[in-house]
Amino acid sequence: MKVNRKRLEDSILELGRIGETPRGGLTRLALTDDDKRARDQMVRWMRTAGLRVSVDQMGNIFGERPGAEPLPPVIVGSHVDSVPTGGKYDGQLGVLCGLEAIRALDDARTRTRHPVTLAIFTNEEGARFQPAMIASGVLAGKIALEDAYNARDRDGVRLGDELERIGYLGAEPCVARPFRAYLELHIEQGPALEEEGLSVGIVDGIVAISWSRLTIHGVQDHAGPTPMRIRHDALVAAADVVTGVRRLAREIGGDLVTTVGNLTAHPNIVNAIPGRVTLSIDMRDPRGETLDRALPMLDRLVEDACAREGVTYELDHYWRVPYTAFAPDVVAAVERAAKGAGTRHRHILSGAGHDAQYMAAIGPAGMIFVPSRDGRSHCEEEFTAMDDIEHGANTLLGAVLELAGRA
Amino acid sequence: MKVNRKRLEDSILELGRIGETPRGGLTRLALTDDDKRARDQMVRWMRTAGLRVSVDQMGNIFGERPGAEPLPPVIVGSHVDSVPTGGKYDGQLGVLCGLEAIRALDDARTRTRHPVTLAIFTNEEGARFQPAMIASGVLAGKIALEDAYNARDRDGVRLGDELERIGYLGAEPCVARPFRAYLELHIEQGPALEEEGLSVGIVDGIVAISWSRLTIHGVQDHAGPTPMRIRHDALVAAADVVTGVRRLAREIGGDLVTTVGNLTAHPNIVNAIPGRVTLSIDMRDPRGETLDRALPMLDRLVEDACAREGVTYELDHYWRVPYTAFAPDVVAAVERAAKGAGTRHRHILSGAGHDAQYMAAIGPAGMIFVPSRDGRSHCEEEFTAMDDIEHGANTLLGAVLELAGRA
Repeated sequence: MKVNRKRLEDSILELGRIGETPRGGLTRLALTDDDKRARDQMVRWMRTAGLRVSVDQMGNIFGERPGAEPLPPVIVGSHVDSVPTGGKYDGQLGVLCGLEAIRALDDARTRTRHPVTLAIFTNEEGARFQPAMIASGVLAGKIALEDAYNARDRDGVRLGDELERIGYLGAEPCVARPFRAYLELHIEQGPALEEEGLSVGIVDGIVAISWSRLTIHGVQDHAGPTPMRIRHDALVAAADVVTGVRRLAREIGGDLVTTVGNLTAHPNIVNAIPGRVTLSIDMRDPRGETLDRALPMLDRLVEDACAREGVTYELDHYWRVPYTAFAPDVVAAVERAAKGAGTRHRHILSGAGHDAQYMAAIGPAGMIFVPSRDGRSHCEEEFTAMDDIEHGANTLLGAVLELAGRA
Repeated sequence: MKVNRKRLEDSILELGRIGETPRGGLTRLALTDDDKRARDQMVRWMRTAGLRVSVDQMGNIFGERPGAEPLPPVIVGSHVDSVPTGGKYDGQLGVLCGLEAIRALDDARTRTRHPVTLAIFTNEEGARFQPAMIASGVLAGKIALEDAYNARDRDGVRLGDELERIGYLGAEPCVARPFRAYLELHIEQGPALEEEGLSVGIVDGIVAISWSRLTIHGVQDHAGPTPMRIRHDALVAAADVVTGVRRLAREIGGDLVTTVGNLTAHPNIVNAIPGRVTLSIDMRDPRGETLDRALPMLDRLVEDACAREGVTYELDHYWRVPYTAFAPDVVAAVERAAKGAGTRHRHILSGAGHDAQYMAAIGPAGMIFVPSRDGRSHCEEEFTAMDDIEHGANTLLGAVLELAGRA
């Protein structure tokens, strides 16, 4: 059994037009009008495929293809929201390959013992509402529903209000229910598969992640009449931290990656010495112990940078996710499917968080990666070749079929 | 002849209530309703003092106290607009000390040979409409009237429309006319007078200023799966530039001040490697040659920082203001007045631009500084003690009297 490459490609092109940027990328922030349009399109396709569609309290969409027996479902899914000026593959591809797997089962008139459910999770990116993966987090019982509703975007708009506004505040409780397996196909977002000429990554787990937030308080003053000797410039201290965070990765080495992705200065005008800067620090490594070593080094470098400039600060290590190991039986099923589909493949780790991470906390989960050109993602240049997508989708289909079982 | 300290203090308190912030500062952006209220109050006081009030095409307000002879006026002035969460001394103090000087002449029934004109310039700060000092710039023939009218605030509102809306689009042509002298009292906005325990600064000129804008193009990518070895992080390069700009001031030394006040990263989210950063570089020195030396060093440090990170950039040195020397006879009159008023004083340079800069291009101009507590300005903590204000106002009065001449 194979997926229909042409139909899959058409769906990718069609869904990709909703929120398309002039340069061919995607800006489809969670719970915006474009997100609603993409959801509506998905629901239409799900209904056309005969799926029973439901929406839960977090706006997660589920479309169930019934199984032959009263068994928990195999869930395939991902998300349709994007980062600003992101690409057309992150998230969307997993959802559409899941839909295509179901369509291929229909084409082959194949009944499965377990139901097969397509899932679309709300606000995976965390680009509009923090934290990322908020809706699978609620589903997994890791985030309180009320806290999720009260998340606000930078204009102060509440997530709960936006869910209602776009018509995706569902009635179904957003709670953990048994499932046979959760499978998510996703772009690698790194360079490994492409560098080795492979089409499919069998994902063993997701790296440990640490997020910190630093606020530096300097003394806001006029850029002209204030001599250098009396300055306490929050941005100078922040620059020192950015450089230090980069140096940290070099010093520890190995697979550790460190990033300052967000930096905001206040009042942020040409002729004022910045009085306040906030910035984020993202650190990831396959081994949690590496982060245990990096965090105190971060504490020290922030302290030193702020002492040098005579500024005060608050540093908050507010989010930590341990290494997530995927379920051995799901990983094994993915590996057999990759072999069965005749793909060139390898085992790999995910450097990014995914909804699969929360799903792994409440049931057997696994992921399938396809290559990212130049390792790039979260940008308009994000691209995966159709040959690789086809190999990935066939691997997903094979794994679904094995895990759901032919009736 | 002396100013009336109590009356001056009352005026400062009363005008300071219009646009007052909860923390005792001032938010009175140009051509807002609060700016209109402050203007209306000034016009009432000017009329009560018997001044002949006129408003020009840029909303500049002039109030003339006639002289005994048909001679060009001595103009005293400043502005009543403020930056957001600014203070109650920047601008407002110069206008009110000018008004008090005129009231003191009236108290003493003193006629002058030259008229004495109080001037209030529109949009000095440049906080709402760019560029700063736009109205004195039009008056001096350096900015076209139509360009000024078409300046838009961040909501897209036109300056010309706002002038009309608040009723300050006057009929008088906004053009240069002969004047005997322009005098502006202003807070120092730096620490020098306070540190030396002085009340009055005799301003010899305004430093040379250079503004540059740097845009760095890196490679936007996901903060997780992108190994350090393939990164081209625009913010890492920008941090290197911020540090370099600070180092530049240390290396050249002397009076050079260098500031990165504005820095904006894109997409500016926790989990994306910044693909683009823009930042501003403000450099000032009394000697233009110092900037001539600093700019190529800036070019080189930007080139090096961007080469190290493998990113591209555009660097534009888009604004340059030469050193402004005030008229020797006006500076000398201010010095004699400072001595005559028994103040502790020194000669000083202004590190910030003022309307006096444009006025100096079309006639003899000078400035008087009073101390800023902790050298701070453009913030709610901005403060000048009444003892210093009184000394400054008496110096202004003395200089006006000398330059306008007793009839």
